[in-house]
Amino acid sequence: MPTQFDPPSGTRDFLAAEWEQREHAFARIQSVFARYGFEPLVTPAFERLDVLLGKYGDDGDKLIFKILRRGEHEGTGEADLALRYDHTVPLARVAAAYGSQLPTPYKRYAIGPVWRADRPGRGRYREFAQCDLDTLGTASAMADAEVICAVHDALAELGLKGFRFLVNSRRVLAGLLEAFGVPADLGPGVLITLDKLDKLAPGEVIAELTGRGLAKAQAAPLVAALTADDAAEQIRDALKTSDEGAAGLDEVDALLSLVCGQVPGERVLFAPRLVRGLSYYTGPIWEVAAEGGAGSLAGGGRYDHLIAQLGGPDVPATGGSLGMERILLLLPRPETGHTRLDVAVTVMDERFAARSFSFAAAARGAGLRASVYLRSSGKLGRQLKWASDAGARWALIYGNAEEEAGAVTVRDMTTGEQTSVPLAGLPAYFANAAATLAGDG
Amino acid sequence: MPTQFDPPSGTRDFLAAEWEQREHAFARIQSVFARYGFEPLVTPAFERLDVLLGKYGDDGDKLIFKILRRGEHEGTGEADLALRYDHTVPLARVAAAYGSQLPTPYKRYAIGPVWRADRPGRGRYREFAQCDLDTLGTASAMADAEVICAVHDALAELGLKGFRFLVNSRRVLAGLLEAFGVPADLGPGVLITLDKLDKLAPGEVIAELTGRGLAKAQAAPLVAALTADDAAEQIRDALKTSDEGAAGLDEVDALLSLVCGQVPGERVLFAPRLVRGLSYYTGPIWEVAAEGGAGSLAGGGRYDHLIAQLGGPDVPATGGSLGMERILLLLPRPETGHTRLDVAVTVMDERFAARSFSFAAAARGAGLRASVYLRSSGKLGRQLKWASDAGARWALIYGNAEEEAGAVTVRDMTTGEQTSVPLAGLPAYFANAAATLAGDG
Repeated sequence: MPTQFDPPSGTRDFLAAEWEQREHAFARIQSVFARYGFEPLVTPAFERLDVLLGKYGDDGDKLIFKILRRGEHEGTGEADLALRYDHTVPLARVAAAYGSQLPTPYKRYAIGPVWRADRPGRGRYREFAQCDLDTLGTASAMADAEVICAVHDALAELGLKGFRFLVNSRRVLAGLLEAFGVPADLGPGVLITLDKLDKLAPGEVIAELTGRGLAKAQAAPLVAALTADDAAEQIRDALKTSDEGAAGLDEVDALLSLVCGQVPGERVLFAPRLVRGLSYYTGPIWEVAAEGGAGSLAGGGRYDHLIAQLGGPDVPATGGSLGMERILLLLPRPETGHTRLDVAVTVMDERFAARSFSFAAAARGAGLRASVYLRSSGKLGRQLKWASDAGARWALIYGNAEEEAGAVTVRDMTTGEQTSVPLAGLPAYFANAAATLAGDG
Repeated sequence: MPTQFDPPSGTRDFLAAEWEQREHAFARIQSVFARYGFEPLVTPAFERLDVLLGKYGDDGDKLIFKILRRGEHEGTGEADLALRYDHTVPLARVAAAYGSQLPTPYKRYAIGPVWRADRPGRGRYREFAQCDLDTLGTASAMADAEVICAVHDALAELGLKGFRFLVNSRRVLAGLLEAFGVPADLGPGVLITLDKLDKLAPGEVIAELTGRGLAKAQAAPLVAALTADDAAEQIRDALKTSDEGAAGLDEVDALLSLVCGQVPGERVLFAPRLVRGLSYYTGPIWEVAAEGGAGSLAGGGRYDHLIAQLGGPDVPATGGSLGMERILLLLPRPETGHTRLDVAVTVMDERFAARSFSFAAAARGAGLRASVYLRSSGKLGRQLKWASDAGARWALIYGNAEEEAGAVTVRDMTTGEQTSVPLAGLPAYFANAAATLAGDG
């Protein structure tokens, strides 16, 4: 039951433990992308409405969050701005705005939220993270291969296993239609249906194809070839009969040979029935299938004229996108629980508050996370409970006895052991403690 | 002149160099806050409109970006959501939603954009970063002191110098009015005018005070005391005549004594005429003045009932906010230019593409940033120009001669020196190069 205090439908509050896991994953991905020479681009959360409208099709337009005009124009009920729907349209705008000030090729990544007024559901949000990687300004297959390698390394860096890159080409698909005699006007519809081969039985797909007007004599062999055990071989043979198909196959093979030098061979395969949302792809396309058919973790391809269609310059481009929400679900929960503190400093008496402050500062000086007890109850038991709840490894106790001894009692929260540390020895003690923690971690 | 490709008015695109500076600053601040045991809280970019409306006053309400309802409701021209205006109202909502699931006290920071439909101007944006630090659930002055120390350490960590904390208390202000015989009903207005002592001459302030109905016999000594060379002493004496004033002074002194143990003494001072937006502060208040009067870099205070007013539980609370955009302007530009690559790998012939890919992968394996040349022109000069533009320290060349020799030519882009490195020796060469770079940096 949502309450008035829940975040808006389809959005989430991230408390510390969950946010730190997300941030950690983002940071690892960023560091992989940076090692490939991709650089960050961060655009505003909203764009002018006309920049976004008409770029995502009619269905997409309906999912755009629009921002009402302000001041005297608010009453018109009109919108002039809209929340970012993806990272690609802003990239096209930036490419147009900065032109030759950008490096050539321009290799950029973008990691951040996008907003879509979709119906929220399990794993589907209205505010969710997208992570894009794109190279603008080169038609080379090396750029496609580099994107695939970078996405592979990012997924591997996150500790994911058992995923596979399915590689195809828009030109292979065109050649396939030609080789199997599909009339040109039926092509787009046929591909949309073929994309369902993972979900539907071959017979159902053939029925849908004939429903689209394709003769059964063409539909049946096409589906048979694509679903055969040796589908890749059969399709390779068939493509030789089409110039476009042969060129597409060369393109795929060039890409595979570059990628397979860097990525374990069993993680990349030619997948002639991979279609993806084909409307704007012009060359190689690819998708990352998770182990056990949990859906696609990432996908991308070459889209040589899209940037121009979106309002940018007409540059060749290739890129990919990671489905961060799905990927985050696959990551193991951190083994150790979330902790807030390494050192918890009790305050046994208000007189010792400044002293306790200085203990915490000394711990922080050694790089440890430290805080004093901030509430008024001075009872030791309650303060140790706080230290324990915060996950502190050590608690410091300084009362009258410690004042007399000129020492502080350090309690190991794991073992309960207590050690008396002379005040002058505290910095060295913390330096040692920090080294211990670093060793444990 | 704005063009159709510019981001919306008051927003910015951040290209790599500028973003990296921002991200670096945010990361340093976060690491300081984390060392104090504050934890991150990230809330959605938008809230339900009713959560935000009425929380920022009439003027604030006008600056809220409202999101149009969707689907069949779009035509109504009504809004149901609104972009985050600050980090405090979302904190109040989260405190209400999670209640006892949050640690007590709950110490959280929030760093991220907020949106205000303000008139854009120099250094004033419609999308800008706010950085908040708050402690909920304790009335202890230690919590106020901890926030001040953490903000101090964050500013120091950024390398800022010459800033000073001005500390006062809402109760000191109340006592001041009492001590100087200001009628209770004139109090709020008098404080608003006294807040202008930095900008107006004493005579002008006195005139404004009498304009508010305060007798000149009260206005003149009040202003004289506040502007005297020994203002702090005079005010201290005056406050002894008021119970509230004496209590406020004790509060300030307790706070100063805790802070001054950790922060250089010259960086903190009692500032009896500091008022701030006093409407919701209930105890200590503070502000960070930049060197040379460049305005306030941060500010905060205790606001014990605000969270309840904003829809949360009635918990004592204290916190502060850093003016990130102003702070970022004060940071030195990075000394070395922005670079994208450490190792630039040329591709002298398509035959060697896979080989070049493996060189780049080896460099990345050593932690270096590396990429192959992705365009079609194979001319060496052009490829070295690309390497130089990317800021690469080394360029790798592998052509027919290198293939025969079983070695790669490594060109030091700084000196122009070229070294022949046998293929088998490349990983060791890169490990050494990475160590060199780490040493240089």
